[in-house]
Amino acid sequence: MSDLFKPSRRAFLRGGAAVAAGSVAGAANAAGPDPLITELQDWESYLGAGVDETPYGLPIRFEQDVVRRNVEWLTASPISSINFTPIHALEGTITPQGCAFERHHSGAIELAKDDFRLMINGLVDKPLVFSYEDIERFPRENHVYFCECAANTGMEWAGAQLNGVQFTHGMIHNMEYTGVPLRTLLAEAGADMSLDKWVYVEGADASSNGRSIPMEKALDDVLVAFKANGEALRMEHGYPVRLVVPGWEGNMWVKWIRRIEVVDRAVESREETSKYTDVYEDGTARKWTWVMDAKSVITSPSPQMPIKHGAGPLVISGLAWSGHGQITRVDVSRNGGITWETARLGKQGDTKALTRFYLDVDWDGAPMLLQARAMDETGYVQPTKDQLREQRGENAVYHNNCIQTWYVNAEGVAENVEVS
Amino acid sequence: MSDLFKPSRRAFLRGGAAVAAGSVAGAANAAGPDPLITELQDWESYLGAGVDETPYGLPIRFEQDVVRRNVEWLTASPISSINFTPIHALEGTITPQGCAFERHHSGAIELAKDDFRLMINGLVDKPLVFSYEDIERFPRENHVYFCECAANTGMEWAGAQLNGVQFTHGMIHNMEYTGVPLRTLLAEAGADMSLDKWVYVEGADASSNGRSIPMEKALDDVLVAFKANGEALRMEHGYPVRLVVPGWEGNMWVKWIRRIEVVDRAVESREETSKYTDVYEDGTARKWTWVMDAKSVITSPSPQMPIKHGAGPLVISGLAWSGHGQITRVDVSRNGGITWETARLGKQGDTKALTRFYLDVDWDGAPMLLQARAMDETGYVQPTKDQLREQRGENAVYHNNCIQTWYVNAEGVAENVEVS
Repeated sequence: MSDLFKPSRRAFLRGGAAVAAGSVAGAANAAGPDPLITELQDWESYLGAGVDETPYGLPIRFEQDVVRRNVEWLTASPISSINFTPIHALEGTITPQGCAFERHHSGAIELAKDDFRLMINGLVDKPLVFSYEDIERFPRENHVYFCECAANTGMEWAGAQLNGVQFTHGMIHNMEYTGVPLRTLLAEAGADMSLDKWVYVEGADASSNGRSIPMEKALDDVLVAFKANGEALRMEHGYPVRLVVPGWEGNMWVKWIRRIEVVDRAVESREETSKYTDVYEDGTARKWTWVMDAKSVITSPSPQMPIKHGAGPLVISGLAWSGHGQITRVDVSRNGGITWETARLGKQGDTKALTRFYLDVDWDGAPMLLQARAMDETGYVQPTKDQLREQRGENAVYHNNCIQTWYVNAEGVAENVEVS
Repeated sequence: MSDLFKPSRRAFLRGGAAVAAGSVAGAANAAGPDPLITELQDWESYLGAGVDETPYGLPIRFEQDVVRRNVEWLTASPISSINFTPIHALEGTITPQGCAFERHHSGAIELAKDDFRLMINGLVDKPLVFSYEDIERFPRENHVYFCECAANTGMEWAGAQLNGVQFTHGMIHNMEYTGVPLRTLLAEAGADMSLDKWVYVEGADASSNGRSIPMEKALDDVLVAFKANGEALRMEHGYPVRLVVPGWEGNMWVKWIRRIEVVDRAVESREETSKYTDVYEDGTARKWTWVMDAKSVITSPSPQMPIKHGAGPLVISGLAWSGHGQITRVDVSRNGGITWETARLGKQGDTKALTRFYLDVDWDGAPMLLQARAMDETGYVQPTKDQLREQRGENAVYHNNCIQTWYVNAEGVAENVEVS
């Protein structure tokens, strides 16, 4: 076993990071085992832990900071709060349910499958009440979709506010949902499916969180979903059944769903009038802004993920998504938008799902103004913050999909800034 | 709110399951609210729980049986054990890490990122030692891959043994892995990449679990991976870095990886001689059986997932996979292989990843002999158990990819059986 430790830790450190210089001078010439590394690498000398005592596994203790977090001042009470995904520390595209963004308006309710009922009424031939078991008997589908709160990045309208991508962009998750197409259940009830009709969807919690959805969307890709990433929805994600409204704002993804009424016009509920609309400068409101436009953000480096290794090879990693379909291209700028480089897409994203992008660079150690700019299959290009403000004014809260800027200094520390 | 409860629970029960009869007679005619359902559906009258106290969420208490499980008699000690994925209760294709199959030979070790070192030595120009941070500086990739133990379904060679798909087929998981291609690190070390060379990969745990991998595979799609489903590997999945060997037996996916030696022939380690080979009837051994051939199984109904709703619409749901690439077709038989129907693929699977399939049927309530048969892009068709026995004899333990049969009786209870 002794040859395993020939390259000493000391020699390695002398040589610098293996990839930084393109070659490591010291390692191959090391004279013998280094006591330090031998002591460090002693796991071979004892048995590890059995795994049988943790039937449902949790992250290792070294990762205890990679959790969803709320912002205390954002809502009046934790009973009506938001949990942000730690996107700075995640990779790939799937969000584990345990740290996935969720928003609840009157707390998370504990609703057993046996107590679940979903009613479809209104403009239907036969009002129906479905049990959980009934839902499971219809043909089901699986799709990876992102769910983004309309308020994601909303604090940033007023300027660079929050110093962490978890908080500027973490009101989003991306999971593989399993569910029954809503159109199947509407057909079962003999609903009037004329395209001028709407469905009004309510949750069973105290907020009810009722939202109106135009029939065209209801018949398209909306799911009545009961699994996420293969397993049951967590309580806070709407157990046992939630609505999935692909590409549309997260508030419409009604949790603990209990009723779908087919109606001849939008209900104009609290959630679609006093909330989830934006007031223009002239006092009129921007309304029915359901689709989440193309957006992207660099997750690393970012304020919570400084560069610690100094100059040399650097992986710039980020996420892009569009409520209109697939991401076709992402550009990255290192100088605040003066010049752009086309990023590598980690793999072709599903439609209305997160796409991971990378720019693999050789960092010269000079400060950078990092930006990403997403494009989707419609040809839409993610706008700058100034462009958005020009369109929407200064009162906006929702649907801020502007280009985000991180200033990275020579030490690798990143900061949320604005460039004009 | 009163109109919400017009359809009474009693009337609903009288009418039967909403989908069973194709229409529900009673619901629309109900006279008024039913006290029972009103009492059941009272969540609107109080606030739910805040979510802020569970920064990393766990499944709701009603799902506490959906956990990975081991089989006490299978190994001598929990320090060398296997945890089976609860595939009977999962849907879609992604396996959450918390309940994902894992096998450890000498316990799970706690190896901090700062202590991690990966050495590449042997037939290389410059032996290198990589820190965790070094690994993060190389261009990375994301892929969903299945990881199946070669011993999965191994108990079944001798006949129908285990009454639960979690135990017959649960030595498998399917996660989105993020990592650096092994070929990148080999190139960095100036490895001899001639196709007659091998790499020998060791873990840092006491078992070391060393395995030899032919250079052609090492240069193809093997990843040095540090994330699964977006987040850090769990301790028991090899934190902080493991090998991912797509389509090949799980034992080669070395966890807590510490050394990769480039060698001119296979090492013939314990894990590839006394283990993970099969002895034929004539005493010779079947060896280097790395690829997991195409396989499928029905996860619901299954012995742990009886049909509780009686005759009528039934979703038959299952998983298929192939170490040779994509699943192109799955057939389902309801009469023990006499006739077959082509299943619907939930969505086109990634290569070397789980594919979900469905057969949506109108069950007449008569007993069934359920089977699934997978086909992959090479044209290979999953064999029957008799066909496999004919090829491999009766001493085999590993690589049982035969067609599985569940007998479902008129009450919907499923049992593991054999048909010839």
